[in-house]
Amino acid sequence: MKISAESERQFLEDVFKAQKFNQKDGALLADTLVDADLRGISSHGIQRLAWYTSMIKEHTLEPEQQPKILKETPTSLLVDANKSMGQIASAFTMNKLIEKTKKLGVSLGVIRNSNHFGTAGYYSRMACKEGLIGISTTNTRPLVVPTNSLEAFLGSNALAFTFPADPHPFVFDGATAVVSSGKIQVLAKKGEQIPGDWAVDENRNVLHDAKTVEDNLSKIAFSEDRPGGGVLTLGGQKEVNSNYKGFGNSLIIELLTGILAQGSLSADTNTGKHDFSQFFMTIDPSLFGDLDVLKANVTEMFNRIRNLKHLPGTKIMIPGDREYKHYDENLIQGISIDDTTADELQKIGEKYHVTVPTEEASNLE
Amino acid sequence: MKISAESERQFLEDVFKAQKFNQKDGALLADTLVDADLRGISSHGIQRLAWYTSMIKEHTLEPEQQPKILKETPTSLLVDANKSMGQIASAFTMNKLIEKTKKLGVSLGVIRNSNHFGTAGYYSRMACKEGLIGISTTNTRPLVVPTNSLEAFLGSNALAFTFPADPHPFVFDGATAVVSSGKIQVLAKKGEQIPGDWAVDENRNVLHDAKTVEDNLSKIAFSEDRPGGGVLTLGGQKEVNSNYKGFGNSLIIELLTGILAQGSLSADTNTGKHDFSQFFMTIDPSLFGDLDVLKANVTEMFNRIRNLKHLPGTKIMIPGDREYKHYDENLIQGISIDDTTADELQKIGEKYHVTVPTEEASNLE
Repeated sequence: MKISAESERQFLEDVFKAQKFNQKDGALLADTLVDADLRGISSHGIQRLAWYTSMIKEHTLEPEQQPKILKETPTSLLVDANKSMGQIASAFTMNKLIEKTKKLGVSLGVIRNSNHFGTAGYYSRMACKEGLIGISTTNTRPLVVPTNSLEAFLGSNALAFTFPADPHPFVFDGATAVVSSGKIQVLAKKGEQIPGDWAVDENRNVLHDAKTVEDNLSKIAFSEDRPGGGVLTLGGQKEVNSNYKGFGNSLIIELLTGILAQGSLSADTNTGKHDFSQFFMTIDPSLFGDLDVLKANVTEMFNRIRNLKHLPGTKIMIPGDREYKHYDENLIQGISIDDTTADELQKIGEKYHVTVPTEEASNLE
Repeated sequence: MKISAESERQFLEDVFKAQKFNQKDGALLADTLVDADLRGISSHGIQRLAWYTSMIKEHTLEPEQQPKILKETPTSLLVDANKSMGQIASAFTMNKLIEKTKKLGVSLGVIRNSNHFGTAGYYSRMACKEGLIGISTTNTRPLVVPTNSLEAFLGSNALAFTFPADPHPFVFDGATAVVSSGKIQVLAKKGEQIPGDWAVDENRNVLHDAKTVEDNLSKIAFSEDRPGGGVLTLGGQKEVNSNYKGFGNSLIIELLTGILAQGSLSADTNTGKHDFSQFFMTIDPSLFGDLDVLKANVTEMFNRIRNLKHLPGTKIMIPGDREYKHYDENLIQGISIDDTTADELQKIGEKYHVTVPTEEASNLE
């Protein structure tokens, strides 16, 4: 079914209120999920609500707790998310970093004891709205097999990097692994096959059945029972295609998150504390030149790239192009909800006595 | 042939002196090339000397010029390399950033009007020696085809990221593209085939003959004549394996280098100014926790990863493991010089009246 962004937002705000999030936090959480769905990143949209809800039951997530600052300098912030939702501690941290960077040109913050934070790009875009470069990362559940490894250790470890440009900023936002687990979840929910070399079994043989992979990843990521296999690093199955570079990228995120924050490593989030760590940075490009000139130069570079000779039937898209196009379209056409997610929303609605959006009830033109 | 590190160093210092670099700069340049060769990164070692020498002839490189600071804040530095060698401006900038970061915890610098700087890791390791996280990047000649593109635009755009650890630091150091062009040069010089999906022709078909690819890349990178094809982004030939993430990584480096420095884009370095731009950052991990504790945590994580179950006949190596192992071995066994490079060194020695190292003349055990 398709629902309007506004009916999704209202439903989510009602659910988060019933789950005891305060009004401001509930609105933020709803906004991050609606924003992801509008951008076509359905892996990080409302389909995650069932997981978020189960985390409250398991006390991995405490809706009424607030983040607190553990250590602060003019250029840095160490935050304890205090088991609140990742979005809450992340927006809190990014707002503080924006203030710091407006004074000293650069600042960075790490969060420990946190949870899933939605899309990484949400926070780096906050910096971009202020004319700053934004960087946003998180570790995750263990999902990713290092080069040559037969078992998962690393998280899919998202990275977002945002740079001001016209008509929209550069928004690189995704897992450092070949794909996020959410992308496999979406295919599994739809009963579709995996189109590329994304995941392997316990012998590093590539698997293409999304349901099989999703079942395996659930065991790897959410239980202490550790079957082999997992998601590949960027670069794929073989060392000869430099998959150790994808491994290195994912390790850099582990160093900046779990290690710097002194939280759990991705590898240990399925046992014990279940906590994630996040890292953020903001940089003022005007340390080096006039923002308007830099933006014009970036915009010109992107336009040159979009117009390079390309394979017939394809397009060259700059990171962000696809998401801003989806955003405009989905605002008008509505957001697609797969049947499995629709069932999950129905059950959540019943549990919290909240009206669930339906195709009929939406305000689509 | 094999030569000792010390005979390589002496030869290089003699050549750089004859080329009118001052003593300090010549010693630095020699050290960066010897260091790369010792680490087994022969693509960035003495085999580049012929190129460096041709740059002096073409006045792309001016050995007697020194870098100058254009703009400085307590957390940042904008440097004009003044057409000196990349190594000179990079070491200058990194030393300044280390001082700044010891005061404020983080700093960043960009360089324009620069040249090739050797391995990116050389500078990030400078930060690491001071207990800091180091980041070092450069743009390059245009070599890399964006996702779906039939022509090169991006540089191979090296990224180094270094984090303190024992028994050696984490040193991620490589092109953001599948490989650097140097790696293809080395295979072409040896008459070997490309073992993976590294480069494509003008229709994005994968090529495996290193000599054919190297000839094509030379035309793309060093002349205004622009044939199609080039090196692939990390993720390979197909969009379905997320090669747009490798494209995004390479674009991030273009933004931090050519754009922030207001120098040339990689795409424009083969016409006009021939300049490269570089970006550096240092971060003090003790902003967030005790360095010794963080180092111990990192070391433990790496040891866990090295010991994961892995494919029979392979090893799991942490970025840096291979290079530190080569370093120790090559210090004793000497540095291999391929025949083509040996011929080039012979000609350079004759040109500058400098004694060329030979296998016989080396002090190897």
